Amino acid sequence: MGLIVQKYGGTSVKDAERVMNVANRVVETYDKGNSVVVVVSAQGDTTDELIEKAMEINPKASKREMDMLLSSGEQISVSLLAMAVEKLGKPVISLTGWQAGFKTDSHYSAARIHKIDKERLQSELDKNKIVIVAGFQGLNKYEDITTLGRGGSDTSAVALAAALHADLCEIYTDVDGVYTADPRIVKNAHKLDDISYDEMLELASLGANVLHNRSVEMAKKYHVKLAVKSSLNRNEGTYVKEVDQVEKMLVRGVTRDNDCARIALCGIEDTPGKAYQVFALLSKHGISVDLIIQSIGNGEKKDISFTITEGELDNTVKLLEENKSALKIDDIKVKKDVSKVSIVGAGMVNNAGVATTMFEALYNADINISMIATSEIKISVLVDQKDAERAVAAIHDKFML
Amino acid sequence: MGLIVQKYGGTSVKDAERVMNVANRVVETYDKGNSVVVVVSAQGDTTDELIEKAMEINPKASKREMDMLLSSGEQISVSLLAMAVEKLGKPVISLTGWQAGFKTDSHYSAARIHKIDKERLQSELDKNKIVIVAGFQGLNKYEDITTLGRGGSDTSAVALAAALHADLCEIYTDVDGVYTADPRIVKNAHKLDDISYDEMLELASLGANVLHNRSVEMAKKYHVKLAVKSSLNRNEGTYVKEVDQVEKMLVRGVTRDNDCARIALCGIEDTPGKAYQVFALLSKHGISVDLIIQSIGNGEKKDISFTITEGELDNTVKLLEENKSALKIDDIKVKKDVSKVSIVGAGMVNNAGVATTMFEALYNADINISMIATSEIKISVLVDQKDAERAVAAIHDKFML
Repeated sequence: MGLIVQKYGGTSVKDAERVMNVANRVVETYDKGNSVVVVVSAQGDTTDELIEKAMEINPKASKREMDMLLSSGEQISVSLLAMAVEKLGKPVISLTGWQAGFKTDSHYSAARIHKIDKERLQSELDKNKIVIVAGFQGLNKYEDITTLGRGGSDTSAVALAAALHADLCEIYTDVDGVYTADPRIVKNAHKLDDISYDEMLELASLGANVLHNRSVEMAKKYHVKLAVKSSLNRNEGTYVKEVDQVEKMLVRGVTRDNDCARIALCGIEDTPGKAYQVFALLSKHGISVDLIIQSIGNGEKKDISFTITEGELDNTVKLLEENKSALKIDDIKVKKDVSKVSIVGAGMVNNAGVATTMFEALYNADINISMIATSEIKISVLVDQKDAERAVAAIHDKFML
Repeated sequence: MGLIVQKYGGTSVKDAERVMNVANRVVETYDKGNSVVVVVSAQGDTTDELIEKAMEINPKASKREMDMLLSSGEQISVSLLAMAVEKLGKPVISLTGWQAGFKTDSHYSAARIHKIDKERLQSELDKNKIVIVAGFQGLNKYEDITTLGRGGSDTSAVALAAALHADLCEIYTDVDGVYTADPRIVKNAHKLDDISYDEMLELASLGANVLHNRSVEMAKKYHVKLAVKSSLNRNEGTYVKEVDQVEKMLVRGVTRDNDCARIALCGIEDTPGKAYQVFALLSKHGISVDLIIQSIGNGEKKDISFTITEGELDNTVKLLEENKSALKIDDIKVKKDVSKVSIVGAGMVNNAGVATTMFEALYNADINISMIATSEIKISVLVDQKDAERAVAAIHDKFML
């Protein structure tokens, strides 16, 4: 018995049958004596269909109007889910983001939650109602509707769990939990029973599509216990929480991320502040950089390489070309069709042999490494995209078996 | 130059092309130096599709959740229209019902507007923006979304025009204006240049589907000048306003309404208060009665006949059967497949010959009249539904030619 926040994604509510399925699960949790708050995304392809309608009229529509448009998707799904719960005879109410008290900044299409005014939520919970909240959306100080961008509904759920001091935040998706590697690539990948916030963060940022790292960051900050489960079966799922004993298993998972491109700035002047100038320029233009490698300079020249998402490649190259002479760069080299393959595990920080084992696995599989980057709990390498799946499987075999 | 409120129905914005067409008309009005507020309904079949989704999940869904669901339809259409206006390079903002300040009572699915908080609207107009407002919806005191029911978007538009002291409220539809009779039935029916509020009210309540009488009542109360126009051409339309000289034309229009059924209560006790008891019972159960005829009693027994909409027939008969002995009714007779045919004109009040002319037209066409009811500006007769179109044509010919 406690307060449980459940989040269901778009595929979990894509049609009437799925909506009833979710309603049954929600009521099951409620009937065990829990208070239940449910966060729902827009049904199946609704968001894509709305975007298509907008593109047909104005491909350059303002983000403010896009948010107005897209937020209707969750308004539809919350009311339908509330109707399904009504059918099961339980007290229920649906709330839009603004009704649920979500206050955000004004970055339309990628707003950040400032706070949640809990008054309405709390009053509905006090009436013993199941509360269904539209994920992905909020209201800014102008009383305009905003959306939270990618991973928005997960973030809504975690924010609600934090604000309401929920005992558990369950994220329902179409996979069983967090795996040691993508089961579609690695046949003997297995599900983790639990994982620490930091490990989950690394896995999420490295391309494991289970949880968006924005929601994991928030969960970590507010100590929200997360569970990742499938909405289609009764399997236990994976818990994301503070894990004390992590030394036992060195490596928790292997991931790959195909959405990257490498840019190398060659022959850049070897004087202090060059790296700062380059990355300040990129961040000023909203370009996120992932891996960064700087060669050891010879006192005159050095090279700086970094990876970005493929979608940002054209912009970034254009920007750098424009500033090539100001930054004193000899040459800009681009490499597409690369993948980042990473291993994550809180235990590897004290174990020097982990990197060696990883590189050995790649060497044995005859896969060339073009960049290496390490942090306390992860090691990432950049490889050719054609080799990525083999790399994941080879590394998984080496560590897991 | 002034402040103009325009309302476009669902068929006027049913697809991207129609939305662009409306945007062009809106911008045209704006470019003439007017302030423009636009009220839009949900696109084409959106509302029906949403209802279908709800029925699939729970045919007995609460009205509160239905309103939550249906109000998303206008949220979609206002943002799309705003995007279309953005494309034409004009400053624009879309507002939901609650953002536009619509405060209603809590009768979900048939809410009445209490007031409009104009602050937001006025501030957007002061910024010289075209303001696109979601019709059909508002917010009650619990901060829940309500919808206004049938004719809701027309009512939204008129309420906005009243609140903002607009110079004109244009209602765009798929017909050219108000006709002397349905042009599909009467070939030589012609469009009226103007019509008084009272005449329009009678026409609206008698089945002319151009304007809902709720919006006309509000226009009359707040002296809002209305124009009914087609969104598909540039014809002048019909103005609805205070008309001074109405004596010139006796009869303004002929209408028929097929959605009626007649109930006769036969052999009811001829004592005071009987009619009151019958209609108090019906109104207590939310049943609206239209025409009422009471026969002259013989001191012992009398008959009361009345018409209702066909949808309410079963309920009404059931209710009356249950109270048959309490009300001391001998017999309840029902007649379906009847139509109400009416003529409307503010001039007929002082002209006794009008009724005679109407009856003569029906007699010449060999059409039997089963009920007659008159008011100051209308005369209605009940005829068999199969005769209704012929009746309209015969009466139209008699008066108009």
